[in-house]
Amino acid sequence: MRGSTPSFLPIGPGGIIGILGGGQLGRMLSLAAAKLGLRTHVYSDKADAPALDVATLRTIAPFDDKGALTKFARSCDAITFEFENVPSAAVAFLAHEKPTHPDARALAVTQDRFAEKTFLSDLGIGTAEFARADTFAEARGALSHIGAPSILKTRHLGYDGKGQAKIVADGDLASALQALREAPAILESLVDFAFECSVVAARAIDGSFIAYDPPENLHTDHILRRSQVPARLTPAQGAQAQAIAKQIADALDYVGVLAVEFFLTKSSALLVNEIAPRVHNSGHWTIEACVVSQFEQHIRAVAGWPLGDPSRHSDAVMDNLIGADAENWRSLAGGTGALHLYGKRDIRPGLKMGHVTRLSPLGAAKPIPRD
Amino acid sequence: MRGSTPSFLPIGPGGIIGILGGGQLGRMLSLAAAKLGLRTHVYSDKADAPALDVATLRTIAPFDDKGALTKFARSCDAITFEFENVPSAAVAFLAHEKPTHPDARALAVTQDRFAEKTFLSDLGIGTAEFARADTFAEARGALSHIGAPSILKTRHLGYDGKGQAKIVADGDLASALQALREAPAILESLVDFAFECSVVAARAIDGSFIAYDPPENLHTDHILRRSQVPARLTPAQGAQAQAIAKQIADALDYVGVLAVEFFLTKSSALLVNEIAPRVHNSGHWTIEACVVSQFEQHIRAVAGWPLGDPSRHSDAVMDNLIGADAENWRSLAGGTGALHLYGKRDIRPGLKMGHVTRLSPLGAAKPIPRD
Repeated sequence: MRGSTPSFLPIGPGGIIGILGGGQLGRMLSLAAAKLGLRTHVYSDKADAPALDVATLRTIAPFDDKGALTKFARSCDAITFEFENVPSAAVAFLAHEKPTHPDARALAVTQDRFAEKTFLSDLGIGTAEFARADTFAEARGALSHIGAPSILKTRHLGYDGKGQAKIVADGDLASALQALREAPAILESLVDFAFECSVVAARAIDGSFIAYDPPENLHTDHILRRSQVPARLTPAQGAQAQAIAKQIADALDYVGVLAVEFFLTKSSALLVNEIAPRVHNSGHWTIEACVVSQFEQHIRAVAGWPLGDPSRHSDAVMDNLIGADAENWRSLAGGTGALHLYGKRDIRPGLKMGHVTRLSPLGAAKPIPRD
Repeated sequence: MRGSTPSFLPIGPGGIIGILGGGQLGRMLSLAAAKLGLRTHVYSDKADAPALDVATLRTIAPFDDKGALTKFARSCDAITFEFENVPSAAVAFLAHEKPTHPDARALAVTQDRFAEKTFLSDLGIGTAEFARADTFAEARGALSHIGAPSILKTRHLGYDGKGQAKIVADGDLASALQALREAPAILESLVDFAFECSVVAARAIDGSFIAYDPPENLHTDHILRRSQVPARLTPAQGAQAQAIAKQIADALDYVGVLAVEFFLTKSSALLVNEIAPRVHNSGHWTIEACVVSQFEQHIRAVAGWPLGDPSRHSDAVMDNLIGADAENWRSLAGGTGALHLYGKRDIRPGLKMGHVTRLSPLGAAKPIPRD
């Protein structure tokens, strides 16, 4: 029985939402579920995962343990996942037992950069130029077509910020393929962007759709450092970005929260960089700046509830606490802003340890500086 | 070792806050602790208590089980309670093991209406006229002094809205005492108030103090129905109410969140009705309208952290969902406002099942109607 024709939704108070994955996104999803009177069952392959601390039920097992997956599914009323690197086989397996959202197709499209870009291109949505580069021959053909500068990326994720190699000149191709260990790849033209932004949106089982205002995003070393709303987009650009997110969600018959990351090029074109089939770091500010956060929207969608109001009552700047940033928790605790710590046991470089969101009145004259 | 000279505060991420009591206040305290990267251990005498759903560690045992209390205390870095009817003996016992806030004195003063009113009176803080009425003779003396109309109340709590009898004429005394089953009592003059309001405030271990803006409160059948900020107080009255809360907190060397409930009389005097040594229903709106909620302030105080900013970015109206109100969860989920459901298994008359908070811009011209 698949989630697209659920027979027992909406899930009422006391119902159990299963969450595959135990990271900070699962933790914040659990907290949002608790606000609605729902319970969560977190399934993690790591015993010290942050989401386990706040889950009513806990399973610690590998993602390919069919016995554990079956038991997990039977305890839940609906199931979701908190990150897209969970094996799609596990999601497909669970979907046979209980309504599972987003579905295996959304996961398949977003787990493969080439499938994702092809999907976008088929919808007429602008992206960087791209071509498949699974083999050296394909990569050479792609490079002759797209030219340098460009980026070679592994098609499949799970490489923790690795899996990308920049090609400045044609001669870089061989070393780039080596850096990627000859994994199936995609070559993309390098976008000379003015800034990055994203749309965090939600789609319900009945097809209704909401989108938050797009934040502007700043990355350092491929890790999100800051998101701020409003972005430096015109109202028309903001509306266009939200319309693209809706087009994507509708095409996937998507249920849950998704994030669409964009480049705004220097010639003011919006190009989609990637789709995340889940709650997203660039939407954390919705916890404080909106009455219904992205985490609650996702739980609402998965549980078959109506979506909530995505409007914001404040402007917001969200700064990630990465690695050693979290050592300053004492001074951060004494500062302004909403402090979130994820309860991770060890501080490691590059690891997202928490975030701080600072609110300011809507449309306050003074722009918030970027550092 | 007592909490007033803690040796290992502030408690860092991953630390464990023990919470005695498993109701919705404990649930929201647990959620606030999780936001700060802290874990909670909930100790409840009921197996289906709402706070257990979101606690990292759980103990289900009677409050006089010294073995269970000891084991609980040893697992925690600091301890608090979520309601004042927890036996003071349990709190005193735990305080020998770990920093425990608020302390036994705050509990003793607020668990006994006569001790509480005497404490307030000794500080020069206005209350209704009151007199001890432990025996029939005392009650008769009290009534001849205070006169009717007045209210006979049991001194000690734990009567779930019972424990009060109105005396309209002198002849009502005997039946009032019978209604209270001759428990130790206090007689209070009936206050002819314009409205009720409260101050929710927090005091840290170093004596620093914050107070939220006072909400105006509407009770029906002795149960809070609505809190809204701002209240119809002048700025001077608001500041006076906050100053009284500070005077009380300082006098008790209080650590944590406390609520002080007031009557504003028709002649514009502020009289304290009662003190709650805990987070309070009239402060639930702080979750959405402030960056740091009352629940987070309490966790911060108990964990030895600095207090957070209590300012609000919005006006707010909080409506309780009591008993059958919660049967409307589907339509409430589709409405505006922040919906909180406590995950209680059974709907019972008079039971607080959840609440809804609606925000509006600060100082918006249109006052929000009371129904």
